Amino acid sequence: MNKIKAAIIGATGYAGQELFRILYSHPYTEVVKVNSVSYTGENYSDIYKNLNGLTELKLTNDEIEKLADEVDVIFLALPHGIASKNVNKNILNKCKIIDLGADFRLKDKNIYEKWYKVEHFGEDVLKEAVYGLCEIHSDEIKKARLVANPGCYTTCSILSLYPLVKGNLINTDTIVIDAKSGVTGAGRKPDITTSYCECNESIKAYKIASHRHTPEIEQELSIAANKNINLIFTPHLTPMNRGILATCYAKLNCECDYEKLKEAYLKYYKDKKFIRILNKGVFPETKNVKSSEYIDIGFTIDKRTGSVIVIGAIDNLFKGASGQAVQNMNLMFGFEEDTAINLPPLYAV
Amino acid sequence: MNKIKAAIIGATGYAGQELFRILYSHPYTEVVKVNSVSYTGENYSDIYKNLNGLTELKLTNDEIEKLADEVDVIFLALPHGIASKNVNKNILNKCKIIDLGADFRLKDKNIYEKWYKVEHFGEDVLKEAVYGLCEIHSDEIKKARLVANPGCYTTCSILSLYPLVKGNLINTDTIVIDAKSGVTGAGRKPDITTSYCECNESIKAYKIASHRHTPEIEQELSIAANKNINLIFTPHLTPMNRGILATCYAKLNCECDYEKLKEAYLKYYKDKKFIRILNKGVFPETKNVKSSEYIDIGFTIDKRTGSVIVIGAIDNLFKGASGQAVQNMNLMFGFEEDTAINLPPLYAV
Amino acid sequence: MNKIKAAIIGATGYAGQELFRILYSHPYTEVVKVNSVSYTGENYSDIYKNLNGLTELKLTNDEIEKLADEVDVIFLALPHGIASKNVNKNILNKCKIIDLGADFRLKDKNIYEKWYKVEHFGEDVLKEAVYGLCEIHSDEIKKARLVANPGCYTTCSILSLYPLVKGNLINTDTIVIDAKSGVTGAGRKPDITTSYCECNESIKAYKIASHRHTPEIEQELSIAANKNINLIFTPHLTPMNRGILATCYAKLNCECDYEKLKEAYLKYYKDKKFIRILNKGVFPETKNVKSSEYIDIGFTIDKRTGSVIVIGAIDNLFKGASGQAVQNMNLMFGFEEDTAINLPPLYAV
Amino acid sequence: MNKIKAAIIGATGYAGQELFRILYSHPYTEVVKVNSVSYTGENYSDIYKNLNGLTELKLTNDEIEKLADEVDVIFLALPHGIASKNVNKNILNKCKIIDLGADFRLKDKNIYEKWYKVEHFGEDVLKEAVYGLCEIHSDEIKKARLVANPGCYTTCSILSLYPLVKGNLINTDTIVIDAKSGVTGAGRKPDITTSYCECNESIKAYKIASHRHTPEIEQELSIAANKNINLIFTPHLTPMNRGILATCYAKLNCECDYEKLKEAYLKYYKDKKFIRILNKGVFPETKNVKSSEYIDIGFTIDKRTGSVIVIGAIDNLFKGASGQAVQNMNLMFGFEEDTAINLPPLYAV
Repeated sequence: MNKIKAAIIGATGYAGQELFRILYSHPYTEVVKVNSVSYTGENYSDIYKNLNGLTELKLTNDEIEKLADEVDVIFLALPHGIASKNVNKNILNKCKIIDLGADFRLKDKNIYEKWYKVEHFGEDVLKEAVYGLCEIHSDEIKKARLVANPGCYTTCSILSLYPLVKGNLINTDTIVIDAKSGVTGAGRKPDITTSYCECNESIKAYKIASHRHTPEIEQELSIAANKNINLIFTPHLTPMNRGILATCYAKLNCECDYEKLKEAYLKYYKDKKFIRILNKGVFPETKNVKSSEYIDIGFTIDKRTGSVIVIGAIDNLFKGASGQAVQNMNLMFGFEEDTAINLPPLYAV
Repeated sequence: MNKIKAAIIGATGYAGQELFRILYSHPYTEVVKVNSVSYTGENYSDIYKNLNGLTELKLTNDEIEKLADEVDVIFLALPHGIASKNVNKNILNKCKIIDLGADFRLKDKNIYEKWYKVEHFGEDVLKEAVYGLCEIHSDEIKKARLVANPGCYTTCSILSLYPLVKGNLINTDTIVIDAKSGVTGAGRKPDITTSYCECNESIKAYKIASHRHTPEIEQELSIAANKNINLIFTPHLTPMNRGILATCYAKLNCECDYEKLKEAYLKYYKDKKFIRILNKGVFPETKNVKSSEYIDIGFTIDKRTGSVIVIGAIDNLFKGASGQAVQNMNLMFGFEEDTAINLPPLYAV
Repeated sequence: MNKIKAAIIGATGYAGQELFRILYSHPYTEVVKVNSVSYTGENYSDIYKNLNGLTELKLTNDEIEKLADEVDVIFLALPHGIASKNVNKNILNKCKIIDLGADFRLKDKNIYEKWYKVEHFGEDVLKEAVYGLCEIHSDEIKKARLVANPGCYTTCSILSLYPLVKGNLINTDTIVIDAKSGVTGAGRKPDITTSYCECNESIKAYKIASHRHTPEIEQELSIAANKNINLIFTPHLTPMNRGILATCYAKLNCECDYEKLKEAYLKYYKDKKFIRILNKGVFPETKNVKSSEYIDIGFTIDKRTGSVIVIGAIDNLFKGASGQAVQNMNLMFGFEEDTAINLPPLYAV
Repeated sequence: MNKIKAAIIGATGYAGQELFRILYSHPYTEVVKVNSVSYTGENYSDIYKNLNGLTELKLTNDEIEKLADEVDVIFLALPHGIASKNVNKNILNKCKIIDLGADFRLKDKNIYEKWYKVEHFGEDVLKEAVYGLCEIHSDEIKKARLVANPGCYTTCSILSLYPLVKGNLINTDTIVIDAKSGVTGAGRKPDITTSYCECNESIKAYKIASHRHTPEIEQELSIAANKNINLIFTPHLTPMNRGILATCYAKLNCECDYEKLKEAYLKYYKDKKFIRILNKGVFPETKNVKSSEYIDIGFTIDKRTGSVIVIGAIDNLFKGASGQAVQNMNLMFGFEEDTAINLPPLYAV
């Protein structure tokens, strides 16, 4: 098979690098362009020295229009507000776009503008954007030209709660998601708040009641519930490089036992290779999914309070960003869904 | 002033060592005995090499009865189930006891036995035990012969929620406490689950819906509410040595604004030196209270869900164990409450 | 191609698991047996939950003789002293052995017994054992039935110094190797010295002037130098999961400049895919080789002291153990040398 | 006793904060001014939230001339090149100066300018500056008006080797110092190289054969040896907040045994409270001196190579910077040398 050609815009962020690394082992894809505003002209392997000897690519600063003529797929790994200005129908006529940023995730432009505090310039292409949560929207993804790759917290949160919401098993007015992320989630940049000695040996919540992944989780769970959901989402910065753990709480709607809930999970997930529903009494740890496409989900019923506690774990850079981007690409191009991402999680790394 | 004499039973655990270290700088107290079953006969400073040159004490295995004749106060830092067997009226007639373990925290022997799965042998002395949460029970503590030093999670959780519960500002059926602890909370012992490579770079929840600090939190908040409370408490193991962050959620009972809640906190805490209510928009990080007696508390209202989110942070070994034990001792012996624990938190340590 | 069959004895150590994980993606090998004395009868994926859903293998405790009948290659990942008792000519007639332990690394039984303080029972097979440092001994490895996979520290140390010693560029009486290792190097076991809170946020040297990798480094460098070498080797325990950094010092033999030394490195390593000689002024960091077969080497001349400083970095579990074991297997079975280990290092993991 | 007044210039660096924290508990000193160019006008406790409620000081940007009129002692915690421009005789006539930076450490202006690549403007005051290594120069320090507080690496390195050099027990042409530091050593600033995910889980050497602490170590050891010494010093960045471990190597000059070397250490250090010579076979770990003024020193003889290996450990921010600054102040003002720094090291923090 001829390899398709790919470009990564925003290649020097952690997600960009992880994407390059995964695609390096992809049998049907070749990354031919790596773009970076900050490091234009430098060798990619001088910025990411793990890639020393593995690539001769130099970082460029090409226009997306130009790249669209040269490649089959463009990955955008950019801060919000840039993609909506630059992606247009003309580009989508020429190549597929997978946006790892936030600009095309929220279907309602007004909600986007409210939470992100910037104008959305891409309303016309927003309409055709598909929310790239592969385990839920694979049919649309296969036909999409523009996929909005989900956020890291949202991937973990939605997948953890989806069967319970879809199955109407929980009271959606009582959902609390307490999520913990490694520091790669904050991106790669010089910033005192993510400096080693400020993050190390400490944990904190941040953007309490105001994190931008909140409306994204609400959007997808509202669709599943077929009604509007507001929920509490609290992210925490955890002293580790990678991983997201989402501890989710809700009052049960029913006199459900464990088996009933398990049934719901299996109903929606039984054929989903990368979702592992853990055995009763076993709960996720972020180390068990590190550098992999897997999400581990465990849950229990707390009879004393009539609640369910669901815990999900992913690697924020892999399933929560670049791995899922490749999974989306595989679906969009008709490759096997698990191509290049069918790897066991690493242990003690 | 003559120094009082103190003994530490269970001196080789992390709380025992921290207690010794704090008391080392206490002007009115001298630790004269350090007990340890596992290391009897060894130099204390060979086990804790930070104490090299600072103490000549050898670890002993004396009976508590014998120690009661020799010292003014005995600190117990033992696994549950031992103290209830060994503390009796006769001992309390001779010296004061501060128990850092769980045996005298729960006023109801049946609840203790249900959660701890062992028989409680000290029912007679249990009746006179005072729950040593200094900011709430200082009057009783001053008169007590036996103080049950609160658990680490419970100290942080109760103090974070107490004013809201006492002031009837939240719906107590909706309380969720999602707590994160450093690994010292698991104690000092050879155990694969707390080995470096198994804990490092990962986070997990544990003892979900079943942790033994749950009934302790419920007991104290129920007293405050004057009604029975059941709540959800989920502890998490976080890759850091020290610190507890408790992220607490509840639906509001009222149309309260931030100022109304702040008022409640100030009402109960305004004279409490070691409680710091953070400014609006500022939230705790465990690093800011490290190696100190302080608890930092911050909160916000989430109007979208009609909820309050309160976050508390302590050092689990200091305010959550040994520092509070010294605070209790200070109250019991009539020393200034902050003697030897009036230290600024360490930064970047 | 039919897959060869492999067994791993000692599969529940970190090296054993890493080996299983690498072989999981090997196109020509299938692991059919995983042995463990401690966990016999349990599901492998219950011990290593990252493998959940990826293998149905149960841990067995088969005799090596029996396994030799069933598989093409046996990997031993055992404490020293066991392999020498169990590997014999009869077994080698039936299958190939790759020993990740120490028993067949030292050619001189007496040196082994002196450093390891146990008797060596496998003198006859020791004679045919090949030291499996792939970049130096590939010709012998290809023909070997029994390969002694090098130690982690030794792999990094020898490869860092080999060209300088072989080229007679340094005074071999002045070699100092100051090495730093992540905690996985200490193995997976409950032990207070490797518990999280004892290792975290601290660094120490250990086995000073007495570590067992010393004679192994000396053996290989002595062969290269064609004379007996004694050197100083000091290992340090570093608070991280993985990685070895070896900082090596020696007085120069000559008025060499940087280019002269570089020439020596290129002479011996220019075709070695997994050795990366860094550009002038660039030095290794363990993060750049994580979870990979690469060794990064950088060096500089210190004119003020007439010395060279060479620094090497590897992943101790990958190139320093399991990855190199697979590289050895590839050579022994005629597969491409880089099969299944041709992966870019992971970043920020 | 009336308290002396102190000012800290550069109060928002890690050393500045640590100094403020130590002086907070000093019975005879009050910090009345905290200066910071970057944060002028802000509350000190808004930058360092651990100090919340403990100080009302605002950060100022006063001229040192002005401060000299207001206080008894000024601590400078500034990047190199600033102090030499600003400290003059007039200021020294008015108050004492303790400079935590590098400008007055090297007695030879030319060596300073060669290594630091900036002009030295304070040659006249340089002459009267005393090198503030308290255990070696206490007599001069007591009389000094200007003390150059030693560097962190240098404190650890010099104290580790001083008795061997002074006693002519080692070949000073063969000294190698391989030092490992926590990340606080790099200061507090937004910088990609000290961001969490770039430092975490990795170790590297840096400024190889070129670190500016080299001439400082050489200066002091040369004085001790009464001859010029050139040595190798290699710093490493270690993934932990605090601590320096210096592993030092040298060929022995003599047929010395362990006892002979121990005698040398005791000769020079037996009355030095903060130097702990460990028992034979025991070696330092940085955790054992954390947040303390202690240096732990252990050593062994390697007969095979005729060498001694000495290992020293300190807390880089405490003994290596701010604690030693207070020790210097205590000596300069006639306080007990250990005032406010006589604290046991913290454990598992």
